[in-house]
Amino acid sequence: MSNAIRNAVSTAAEKMLSFSRTYENMSVSGHKLPDRDKIVEITKKLRSVMFPGFFETPAQQDNAYALGSTLSSVSAELFTQAKAALRTVCPLEEAESRAESIVAEFVSRLPEVQKILATDVEALYSGDPAAMSRVDVIFSYPGLLAITVYRLSHVLYTLGLPIIPRMMTEYAHEKTGIDINAGARIGSYFFIDHGTGVVIGETTVIGDYVKLYQGVTLGALSTRKGHMLEGVKRHPTLGNRVTVYAGASILGGETEIGDDCLIGSNAFVTGSVPPRTRVSNKSCELTFRKMDPEVWENA
Amino acid sequence: MSNAIRNAVSTAAEKMLSFSRTYENMSVSGHKLPDRDKIVEITKKLRSVMFPGFFETPAQQDNAYALGSTLSSVSAELFTQAKAALRTVCPLEEAESRAESIVAEFVSRLPEVQKILATDVEALYSGDPAAMSRVDVIFSYPGLLAITVYRLSHVLYTLGLPIIPRMMTEYAHEKTGIDINAGARIGSYFFIDHGTGVVIGETTVIGDYVKLYQGVTLGALSTRKGHMLEGVKRHPTLGNRVTVYAGASILGGETEIGDDCLIGSNAFVTGSVPPRTRVSNKSCELTFRKMDPEVWENA
Amino acid sequence: MSNAIRNAVSTAAEKMLSFSRTYENMSVSGHKLPDRDKIVEITKKLRSVMFPGFFETPAQQDNAYALGSTLSSVSAELFTQAKAALRTVCPLEEAESRAESIVAEFVSRLPEVQKILATDVEALYSGDPAAMSRVDVIFSYPGLLAITVYRLSHVLYTLGLPIIPRMMTEYAHEKTGIDINAGARIGSYFFIDHGTGVVIGETTVIGDYVKLYQGVTLGALSTRKGHMLEGVKRHPTLGNRVTVYAGASILGGETEIGDDCLIGSNAFVTGSVPPRTRVSNKSCELTFRKMDPEVWENA
Repeated sequence: MSNAIRNAVSTAAEKMLSFSRTYENMSVSGHKLPDRDKIVEITKKLRSVMFPGFFETPAQQDNAYALGSTLSSVSAELFTQAKAALRTVCPLEEAESRAESIVAEFVSRLPEVQKILATDVEALYSGDPAAMSRVDVIFSYPGLLAITVYRLSHVLYTLGLPIIPRMMTEYAHEKTGIDINAGARIGSYFFIDHGTGVVIGETTVIGDYVKLYQGVTLGALSTRKGHMLEGVKRHPTLGNRVTVYAGASILGGETEIGDDCLIGSNAFVTGSVPPRTRVSNKSCELTFRKMDPEVWENA
Repeated sequence: MSNAIRNAVSTAAEKMLSFSRTYENMSVSGHKLPDRDKIVEITKKLRSVMFPGFFETPAQQDNAYALGSTLSSVSAELFTQAKAALRTVCPLEEAESRAESIVAEFVSRLPEVQKILATDVEALYSGDPAAMSRVDVIFSYPGLLAITVYRLSHVLYTLGLPIIPRMMTEYAHEKTGIDINAGARIGSYFFIDHGTGVVIGETTVIGDYVKLYQGVTLGALSTRKGHMLEGVKRHPTLGNRVTVYAGASILGGETEIGDDCLIGSNAFVTGSVPPRTRVSNKSCELTFRKMDPEVWENA
Repeated sequence: MSNAIRNAVSTAAEKMLSFSRTYENMSVSGHKLPDRDKIVEITKKLRSVMFPGFFETPAQQDNAYALGSTLSSVSAELFTQAKAALRTVCPLEEAESRAESIVAEFVSRLPEVQKILATDVEALYSGDPAAMSRVDVIFSYPGLLAITVYRLSHVLYTLGLPIIPRMMTEYAHEKTGIDINAGARIGSYFFIDHGTGVVIGETTVIGDYVKLYQGVTLGALSTRKGHMLEGVKRHPTLGNRVTVYAGASILGGETEIGDDCLIGSNAFVTGSVPPRTRVSNKSCELTFRKMDPEVWENA
């Protein structure tokens, strides 16, 4: 490395260290923040115990007790990370006792999560003609990955754990392009196909047997008031058996979509819709124009 | 780890093991399912042999014979995984002999795949003013990654291999946000720019020199009939030299877009279009409203 | 491995090696191209020095000097990769001296990048009611990841380094679905929420305090002229405090959006807009149709 680079490094490092004190109030001195890589590892292991035999290493597959052992190690690691996350909002002793009760409660709810995920597998398999088998769905459907991580993170969110639920759902967002906030409340038999671009906001409520396609937003009308809106219901409520086709947006905390509605592609819905209604874009009329060869060349 | 967590773990593990029998019919006892991590590794290696010198480790770059050796090891691994995938649909002996003939046929078609991929590189380079070189395209264009993986998986799909083609295309979907079903049939000089949100359904047929931009859906009109639609042509046919701009949707198995058509941004097309036609959204008219400072504050 | 597969491998390998000479003019003989995995590693490390204490390994967190040491090793690695990238466009000696001055200049600008990123953290935190803390934003917001990688790659782009800036932004695109070309010019306090599907073209210019939501395209009107358009301003200019809601497209190199404008969801804007204007889709009217139970069944 040349002297020019070496000098640039030492000057820059000094300036950056001094500026980094801006962030000092965020990391309690001598205390470690949660480790994002560990959270990803925990999330992957939790997924593997939800679908035993699919995602483990070969050695584990042969041994039924592997589930208990994986669950045990993942709980210990989650406890460590939960303590670190809670340490950003409360003193050490409190962080420790809260982490303990959150993790115990979380683990005890995992069997319920596993059962509801089996309904999601069913919805994805029966709803997609291209799904060749349930094995296909469990291995390869991004919708199932996003739903699995959401259902796990939602339990931690409701138990009041900071930072970590969002790290988990962001891992799923990264993998799938599906952005489900851990705060949303979602019923059983949930179906998302393709999924890239789907956004489901923090205060969304969704019934059973709901289907969403790629690019659907269940969002807020405006968030210009920023943190004044914290805790306010900003996102819509969908009833049971609602289908929302690709690219549609349903916005607003008071917007309620009744049972059995069909929301057409690209529809932009900002008000409530009564049950059993089909909503479509009225015109979005198309024009057709014949192209001459010359026009074509200059197009 | 506290007793509370320890107890929660053992109770939950027991319940989850018992529930996991739901999935038992999916995994033949004593038999391993395909390994998703291995499929990703195989896919990466196959991509590296398509573009020698670009993605290998430095040691391999120096040695032309590396291509043969990589291809040999990747074929052996693919054989193992193909057996596991076929084992879910047929007895062991048949799985073995079908895996063998599928892998041999697949490998013998790789030179054709390599040649057609060279046409895709050309299309991407010449179609994007921001592409600085073909090196840029091969290293960094998500469109090329998605097309490469699609072309490889399509060969396996047509040879009747279950599970694995979808695992491969889902790997590309994860990396690029481009979701091409391995069943689609796509001509040469295929161009996808940016690509996030692109969906190309299983029974889509696409000609030569076609260009797609981000957010384009080539999809089905409705899939509410689920598996009754398996095998039915549900997705559109595009002729040669068709360009589809960002966010447009072309839907339906009987929809045919003629040669040299231009489909405008966000157009929603559910019927056939004759050759050399430019289709655009008629109005999607805009309103412009001046904002007072006070309105602005309350917006 | 069977003989059938073995034979297929050797025949295919020979054909593919011979075809791979097509790419020979791209890789200078005996010379290594940049290594994509190394670029990803460099990008991750640069991000970690931007936010000290958040992304390092635990050992590094405890030691302030870690920043200097990481910066030093990352500069050495970047120098090696920059030489390889420049080697594709100039002779070895020139590549070496240009790589040296580019890396030295790049490192000396990092403190500025760090400062402007602190404004982005602030914009993301204060603009999203669901953001629980700045820690949340730094760890988990895809918008911040994409902006961080863009700001780093933009410096290298302006210094004339080929191949590598695009590799870096494509890494961020892969992780977030946000595709910002390294050539774009973007002011401080930049906010992108959710972000999947966002595309920001090479010649885009963006002011301060601008907010974009998922699926926004800042793009070109047409790129059919390919490389004849290289260097031409093809993408729009946005003033200060402009907000662009989800799914909107703003296209064209002469399109200027004035200060304090609000561009509504899914608006398709191809002309300039004066300051303090709210632009919305006029009607995109919806139709509502009641469904009978029978219609429902056949829908």
